[in-house]
Amino acid sequence: MKTIKEAARWLLERDHFLILTHRRPDGDAVGSAVSLCLGLRAIGKDAWIWANPQFTPRYAQRLDGLTRQDLADNAVLVAVDMASETLLPMGGDGFAGKTQLCLDHHPSNTGYAADTLVQPECGGCGELIWDLLEELGVDITADMAEAVYIAISTDTGCFRFNNTTARTFRTAAKCVEHGAQIGPINRDFFEIKSKGRLQLEARIMENIEFYADGKVAIACLPQNWVEELGVTEDDLDSISGFPRTIDGVSVGVMIRNSEAGKAKMSVRTAPGYNASAYCAKLGGGGHAAAAGCSVPGTLEDGKSAILAVLREENVI
Amino acid sequence: MKTIKEAARWLLERDHFLILTHRRPDGDAVGSAVSLCLGLRAIGKDAWIWANPQFTPRYAQRLDGLTRQDLADNAVLVAVDMASETLLPMGGDGFAGKTQLCLDHHPSNTGYAADTLVQPECGGCGELIWDLLEELGVDITADMAEAVYIAISTDTGCFRFNNTTARTFRTAAKCVEHGAQIGPINRDFFEIKSKGRLQLEARIMENIEFYADGKVAIACLPQNWVEELGVTEDDLDSISGFPRTIDGVSVGVMIRNSEAGKAKMSVRTAPGYNASAYCAKLGGGGHAAAAGCSVPGTLEDGKSAILAVLREENVI
Repeated sequence: MKTIKEAARWLLERDHFLILTHRRPDGDAVGSAVSLCLGLRAIGKDAWIWANPQFTPRYAQRLDGLTRQDLADNAVLVAVDMASETLLPMGGDGFAGKTQLCLDHHPSNTGYAADTLVQPECGGCGELIWDLLEELGVDITADMAEAVYIAISTDTGCFRFNNTTARTFRTAAKCVEHGAQIGPINRDFFEIKSKGRLQLEARIMENIEFYADGKVAIACLPQNWVEELGVTEDDLDSISGFPRTIDGVSVGVMIRNSEAGKAKMSVRTAPGYNASAYCAKLGGGGHAAAAGCSVPGTLEDGKSAILAVLREENVI
Repeated sequence: MKTIKEAARWLLERDHFLILTHRRPDGDAVGSAVSLCLGLRAIGKDAWIWANPQFTPRYAQRLDGLTRQDLADNAVLVAVDMASETLLPMGGDGFAGKTQLCLDHHPSNTGYAADTLVQPECGGCGELIWDLLEELGVDITADMAEAVYIAISTDTGCFRFNNTTARTFRTAAKCVEHGAQIGPINRDFFEIKSKGRLQLEARIMENIEFYADGKVAIACLPQNWVEELGVTEDDLDSISGFPRTIDGVSVGVMIRNSEAGKAKMSVRTAPGYNASAYCAKLGGGGHAAAAGCSVPGTLEDGKSAILAVLREENVI
């Protein structure tokens, strides 16, 4: 399947849709599912979202009345934002091999569904959903527009990340024009931090070490801080990138300790530095700007190991 | 002057422009000035930006070759993003009464210029400049597009603030389509914080006090921390809002001490709470969501005073 037009025709010819989101569903997954479900209902279709057990409370109101837990015999299974069946939601193993249509924006999509529309140029999968709703002739409501706005704004870090395109901005403009109240959404997703997260950042800042005139920052995040402060996985979102958000830091390293007695390092670098090369020396890998590795031992062992690599590479 | 078309005609009929920015120029002021200056030059006009002594280093490269310090006799003075002559730049008092055209988006514009185009519906003044460049027939370059992008993204907090409109998003889309590289701009303006700012936030978090099950947060920022950590005024940008960015906080108070022996309080509130009413009880004022007041004495005196008010108002 190549086009939005084809996907729209495919949906118009069918009914009784069950929409599937991936494990640990994020804003793009939930927003894409909600807007698609509402849109299909608006043109008279029977549509539901499978009740992913990992939907978080922040989405409860938007999902209200849209979810169900069973898979009817005649249901047409549509996955959104899900690149591979390894991401099937918890308790959703029974869906393996049954997805009839997958709507996605990940270039790594494995093609596990019978039909697939992948648009890797979308900042968020929600962009594709918007175009699909238009093609379906849906009279787009404020609820649908807010769901699409959540999808694209969260997946692009509120239009900050490099996956933000002109199309992303144009879709956001349409969301506003269709009544999306973006102020409260922006505050909820992009301004508010939990007390635990802020306390954690405070401790990290107190203990962070700088090298090479502040070009290199190495931070440690002991697991017991996470427990002491009652910090959740949601709270830890993008914490690995924290050292690189400090002015002047070109190489940022975050070290966490694992239960298995390892020091796990995330390395983020500016252009001109190669995180992947540094991590490869410790058996890890990744991209030039973001890579990871782990070594046996304590946080201090991890710090010594990465410092040795940075010295070898003449970074410090 | 009512329309972009009229402003364009006005500019086309004249030459030798000197563009004026306001005191403590922000991203919108600089971005608007740079894009307008480049656009006017692109259609063969002689155009310069007055060398505002408060231009900060982050804009040096974009302003390179565009600034001058003198006012030629035949110069046509055009102010951008400047609502009133009380905002004339430092050293620019001689410009009083001489502005021939003011392009602005502040509803409070005093009409100090001979001609004025105010579009209060613009999230940033840069939106108006973009439309003007199009109307002037300018072949918009990546440099102009980046300047407009800086203008609108900074004035809307990267599209998070309530002044963000569909037009803001559409202008951003056009900036990207005209070659603006928004990734580095977003990182520079919206991701990076100074070491001093982060250390300051860390100290604030260590000492912040919560009341009413976390609904109220009161933070103190002693002036000696600012000095110890070498924090600049730029670093302190929006620090007053910090307590309200904590999850669950409906009333956030930031208290700073002044040289004059006063405790200055900034109060930020969620809908349903009235910052202005609380501050009025201490002789201050403002808006329902953001207000300020001060009392003689130390930070602790300030805290006692605002706590007393919050108790009277049954907030705590």
